[in-house]
Amino acid sequence: MTFITDDFLLSSDTAARLYHDHAAPQPIFDYHCHLPPQDLAQNRRFSHLTEAWLEGDHYKWRAMRAHGVPETFCTGSADPYDQFLAFAKTVPHTLRNPLYHWTHLELKRYFNLDVLLSEDTAREVWDEANRQLQDLPAAAILDRFSVRLVGTTDAPADDLTHHRHLAEHPDLLPHTTVAPAFRPDATHNLTDLSAWNAVVDQLAAAADLRIDHFDDFLAALAQRHAFFHQHGSRLSDHGLTHLPARDCSHDTARGIFRRARHGDTDHDPATDFSDPPSPLRGHDPERFTAFMMLFFAELDHDAGWTHQLHLGALRNNNAHALKHLGPDTGYDSIGDARQGPGLRRHLGTLAGRKKLPQAVLYNLNPRDNHLFAAMAGNFQQAPTPGSPYSAPSKVQFGSGWWFLDQKHGMTDQLNALSNLGLLSHFVGMLTDSRSLLSYPRHEYFRRLLCDLIAKDVDAGELPRDFDLLGPLVENISFHNAKRYFNLPLKD
Amino acid sequence: MTFITDDFLLSSDTAARLYHDHAAPQPIFDYHCHLPPQDLAQNRRFSHLTEAWLEGDHYKWRAMRAHGVPETFCTGSADPYDQFLAFAKTVPHTLRNPLYHWTHLELKRYFNLDVLLSEDTAREVWDEANRQLQDLPAAAILDRFSVRLVGTTDAPADDLTHHRHLAEHPDLLPHTTVAPAFRPDATHNLTDLSAWNAVVDQLAAAADLRIDHFDDFLAALAQRHAFFHQHGSRLSDHGLTHLPARDCSHDTARGIFRRARHGDTDHDPATDFSDPPSPLRGHDPERFTAFMMLFFAELDHDAGWTHQLHLGALRNNNAHALKHLGPDTGYDSIGDARQGPGLRRHLGTLAGRKKLPQAVLYNLNPRDNHLFAAMAGNFQQAPTPGSPYSAPSKVQFGSGWWFLDQKHGMTDQLNALSNLGLLSHFVGMLTDSRSLLSYPRHEYFRRLLCDLIAKDVDAGELPRDFDLLGPLVENISFHNAKRYFNLPLKD
Amino acid sequence: MTFITDDFLLSSDTAARLYHDHAAPQPIFDYHCHLPPQDLAQNRRFSHLTEAWLEGDHYKWRAMRAHGVPETFCTGSADPYDQFLAFAKTVPHTLRNPLYHWTHLELKRYFNLDVLLSEDTAREVWDEANRQLQDLPAAAILDRFSVRLVGTTDAPADDLTHHRHLAEHPDLLPHTTVAPAFRPDATHNLTDLSAWNAVVDQLAAAADLRIDHFDDFLAALAQRHAFFHQHGSRLSDHGLTHLPARDCSHDTARGIFRRARHGDTDHDPATDFSDPPSPLRGHDPERFTAFMMLFFAELDHDAGWTHQLHLGALRNNNAHALKHLGPDTGYDSIGDARQGPGLRRHLGTLAGRKKLPQAVLYNLNPRDNHLFAAMAGNFQQAPTPGSPYSAPSKVQFGSGWWFLDQKHGMTDQLNALSNLGLLSHFVGMLTDSRSLLSYPRHEYFRRLLCDLIAKDVDAGELPRDFDLLGPLVENISFHNAKRYFNLPLKD
Repeated sequence: MTFITDDFLLSSDTAARLYHDHAAPQPIFDYHCHLPPQDLAQNRRFSHLTEAWLEGDHYKWRAMRAHGVPETFCTGSADPYDQFLAFAKTVPHTLRNPLYHWTHLELKRYFNLDVLLSEDTAREVWDEANRQLQDLPAAAILDRFSVRLVGTTDAPADDLTHHRHLAEHPDLLPHTTVAPAFRPDATHNLTDLSAWNAVVDQLAAAADLRIDHFDDFLAALAQRHAFFHQHGSRLSDHGLTHLPARDCSHDTARGIFRRARHGDTDHDPATDFSDPPSPLRGHDPERFTAFMMLFFAELDHDAGWTHQLHLGALRNNNAHALKHLGPDTGYDSIGDARQGPGLRRHLGTLAGRKKLPQAVLYNLNPRDNHLFAAMAGNFQQAPTPGSPYSAPSKVQFGSGWWFLDQKHGMTDQLNALSNLGLLSHFVGMLTDSRSLLSYPRHEYFRRLLCDLIAKDVDAGELPRDFDLLGPLVENISFHNAKRYFNLPLKD
Repeated sequence: MTFITDDFLLSSDTAARLYHDHAAPQPIFDYHCHLPPQDLAQNRRFSHLTEAWLEGDHYKWRAMRAHGVPETFCTGSADPYDQFLAFAKTVPHTLRNPLYHWTHLELKRYFNLDVLLSEDTAREVWDEANRQLQDLPAAAILDRFSVRLVGTTDAPADDLTHHRHLAEHPDLLPHTTVAPAFRPDATHNLTDLSAWNAVVDQLAAAADLRIDHFDDFLAALAQRHAFFHQHGSRLSDHGLTHLPARDCSHDTARGIFRRARHGDTDHDPATDFSDPPSPLRGHDPERFTAFMMLFFAELDHDAGWTHQLHLGALRNNNAHALKHLGPDTGYDSIGDARQGPGLRRHLGTLAGRKKLPQAVLYNLNPRDNHLFAAMAGNFQQAPTPGSPYSAPSKVQFGSGWWFLDQKHGMTDQLNALSNLGLLSHFVGMLTDSRSLLSYPRHEYFRRLLCDLIAKDVDAGELPRDFDLLGPLVENISFHNAKRYFNLPLKD
Repeated sequence: MTFITDDFLLSSDTAARLYHDHAAPQPIFDYHCHLPPQDLAQNRRFSHLTEAWLEGDHYKWRAMRAHGVPETFCTGSADPYDQFLAFAKTVPHTLRNPLYHWTHLELKRYFNLDVLLSEDTAREVWDEANRQLQDLPAAAILDRFSVRLVGTTDAPADDLTHHRHLAEHPDLLPHTTVAPAFRPDATHNLTDLSAWNAVVDQLAAAADLRIDHFDDFLAALAQRHAFFHQHGSRLSDHGLTHLPARDCSHDTARGIFRRARHGDTDHDPATDFSDPPSPLRGHDPERFTAFMMLFFAELDHDAGWTHQLHLGALRNNNAHALKHLGPDTGYDSIGDARQGPGLRRHLGTLAGRKKLPQAVLYNLNPRDNHLFAAMAGNFQQAPTPGSPYSAPSKVQFGSGWWFLDQKHGMTDQLNALSNLGLLSHFVGMLTDSRSLLSYPRHEYFRRLLCDLIAKDVDAGELPRDFDLLGPLVENISFHNAKRYFNLPLKD
């Protein structure tokens, strides 16, 4: 039985025509993901499916845990085949979860396997996929889907060794540009001051500067931003629960920095009973973030970059798991912080200063879809002559992300964007993934997009005019992102 | 190619029968809009499509900006045809946005034009529509859709000149009653005290009263409410981010008024460092609004009016645009303030005082649909004998509004209302529009309504009984509103 | 005309096959409802439909009020037939409301009546249903749907007389286990201290303990929990607007208890102007709840129970109705409190203490579906050997509840769960009802579930493999709940 057919997710001839003629031929512009640059620079070859699938994939770990699989088969050290087998046993229990589709799409596209994964088929899939993996180094995996750009995510102190290696050896990935993105979250996260000070120390080392004063700190960050620019970066990325609602002046931020960096408590023992006395006051972390985010956005603007805002995650919810397994192990989820006031303040302030960069706004809670889509619409404007920002829809409502990276999530995002903005200028899908095998998600997105548009056409809600609709699909699949992000492609 | 067919949005014979036999024949009762009364009183004739379409329509401006159109073609002073052409070029990029449907519905209904608007067809549309506009004064535009009532939106200090003119010349709009609505938002908006004092001064002039004390202020407002009543108003309208969660006593409100009106700061220089010292304290604006909203609701109740609450907009988000273009130019969007506590306090207090007027609750963030629909259900009651309120479902969950004025927004509102209240008593659609040509939105709503009901019928979820369903559709299209709002129609 | 056909809600052969072959044959495991234990212990026989339908059903009262029916026909003392007639007249106005489906499903399933209820058919339905009700005592009503378990909801001070009577007379309900659930909300609700003290007094009497100190209070609650355990309870249930975001230490909770129990105000007349001085401080009620909820969860964990959290109701919104009719009369609705921080703190703290019980998380505002579904995923783990918790998906995202107990609400819950967790391990539907005749809601849920899955199969999004899908449906209908809740069934 073939599950992943040619017309998977395409419910009509209209959908099939849009997909096969217009979407499928487009290459992939994966402007934001979490692939390890080292895997790309070393053109990594996976030894087996457990390496490729289970090494860092919290989606799969969460499903396995929900199926009652012990941790040793998830993040633990069980035998690789046993780990794979535990996942294979879980798969038939993931019906209606996106993993069921991802898994079989990946088996079909990379290994031409039509089998449904389960305990019964685990050994056969393991043997055949592992055999084929020997001929599938990273470059081949990228070429299978014509991936023309990969945007990684990197800390400001990163020396970008792997990116430089790739730049120096363009034939390693002959058809794919790899660009870093500047992700400075840890540089303004004051919830753990010793961790933050360590990050500042790394930053000082990377910038070869001493960081005592706030101005040193800002100078070091600006220097790293320039370093990233020099090595091909044109995007920053920021992951926050929400943007703070209140402003923070330079003087206030400097005071917070001083207290956080030097432990000046300035505290009044008559009213502050914290033990040991914290150098920070109640709203300091929020305020510092408010200031720093404007600082980063201005750097982005002045360099012609795109400013990505990933808002709404609630992280490290399971105290037991955090202690034993650390962060990013599948214990994050969806928060409900207010997003409106902070977005309004941040973007509105930048617009008022004429410093608004291109920006992509991503929400993790789908209840915020309409707020985000409408908010983006407040900041659209014609390109200024001479500006590096030449694409329409300067502020984008980003594609369904993380928990929303599935049929309903993507569809709801596309509908909110369509109703409140211009779908036609959408920069489209990104994997946001840690897995090299996740490129079929672009295919998945395109099939959904084509089916959604086709349903409207068949219902008479859009004109049956392929000269109008074909370019729409082609642009969202590839050309809009290519135009928007200003990153050079190979060839 | 005909895009707007007879069965546009009607996906089955059942839907077509419901629409053509039951919905389409009904006149329109447009109980709330923002049409300029002057345009009606002068029976305005548009010189060209740019006047009719682009003069005040922030929906179109937002789309044009998202397409990268310079401001001179939106709110600016470019040549009218060039403005129209800029819009025409934008239209093919609005696929899946409600503008694509509105635009072609209006071309079809008012000008019998079947063409798809684009750069290629712009000149032909411009010439033909402009020619026909000469025979389409306001009265003819209203008659084209059998508009029997238009409810405008007016400031308390307004002298209602145009409404009086219309009342004195009933033949100007031979089939249409025009009724004002009392919109006092600016009278309790204390965020800008000099603007507020100017509004109070206008109010004093309109009421021919001196307003020094709080009681003067309340007396002037009550007097204006009575003046509106005398000139046919039976609705108020209130646009707020949210209703405040906390009560405010008369004494507190009087104190706030005194400080806001006379700048009595009463401030303690030891704790208040604002510079210049503000006469207001932190929560004063919220508290004043809480008090005044109860005051207005009681006026509405005592006069047998309907109290409209439009909640959830986040306004003036782009500081740069606000400075250069002013408010209401397309920089407002959807907020995420909490709505439950304030609605509960406001409506619950009124119910406790036996002063609850008829009320229509509109939310701008669709994530609040269920909260609003369920909240309305807490305040339903049988009509009291002798009360002017004789219609069922005294508190209504209002139709999809502003950003939600599209297929998904309307459908979601209808579904939430159906599941949590009684769809059969819904007062239905309103345009909420600034554009005289927007009456096809009632048609659009009715087609969606009929299609939604028909889908249930065809799925066996509603009985196939047109004696039951026909009146349902007719009532929601017209009769429920006519019964509910107690406004006299002509003929 | 037959409205409730065999294939009601089943839109395809696939759906019909899944339902008739796999879902319909399953018995019912109704793990949470509000049936009066007395009705079960006395094997109640209803005199007429008004008793069965209108005695305590706020869903129907709300619909009647929205239709303009005077209160005497709802909660009042009108003649039973007149009350029924008022409801019958309302029913044709409930098209698209779940009541329309519930009503006709109940008429069909219990009385084999195919008629649509209205004023015209009221007398015929009344006579025939009342005739048949004579042969439909509680036991027969339960058997009609093979109800194998009924989980009631009981106060800690309840002596469980009726549960004990049922245990002593197993033939009263020959096929149905009735298990109590521990619902201690009133024991930590400090908003009305005299009501709370009365509850503590009842608790003291039930536990036969004097409750002066906080430790007495905790001991009494633990003793009642053990008493419930001894009488077959394996579930607790908690109804809160939200879980508090902040921790509360044992010392703080003890201080709050002392003030609440003994009126020790500790207040400073210079700063506290409450009149009479309240013994409580601003955040005391929230903090007390935070502490007590952890206490109850630990009791649940140590006894191997399931901890149910019903979050999000906004109660008693109509001050007038509360005064005249009391609570639970149809004036509650859907709130918008933040749910993320409190769920994170509560469940995260329990996980950190290794005291996390099985838990079912129910949200009342559907905008929180994704937050709840993702939150559950943070706490999945393999069963610990020797633990009473042996089922997968230890923390469950609960079924659509109260206002969401309808087609769209259930579908949205199933979709969020499918996308963010494992549908296959879902414990499924519960009635949460006060009405013995509400068991067709399980049928309703199963039909929707089968139709949803079938649509995916027919669209090629799930494999057409009934060996995979049949057990999925059977498990969600019955076996998952049976395995999860650890409650013994009869036979």
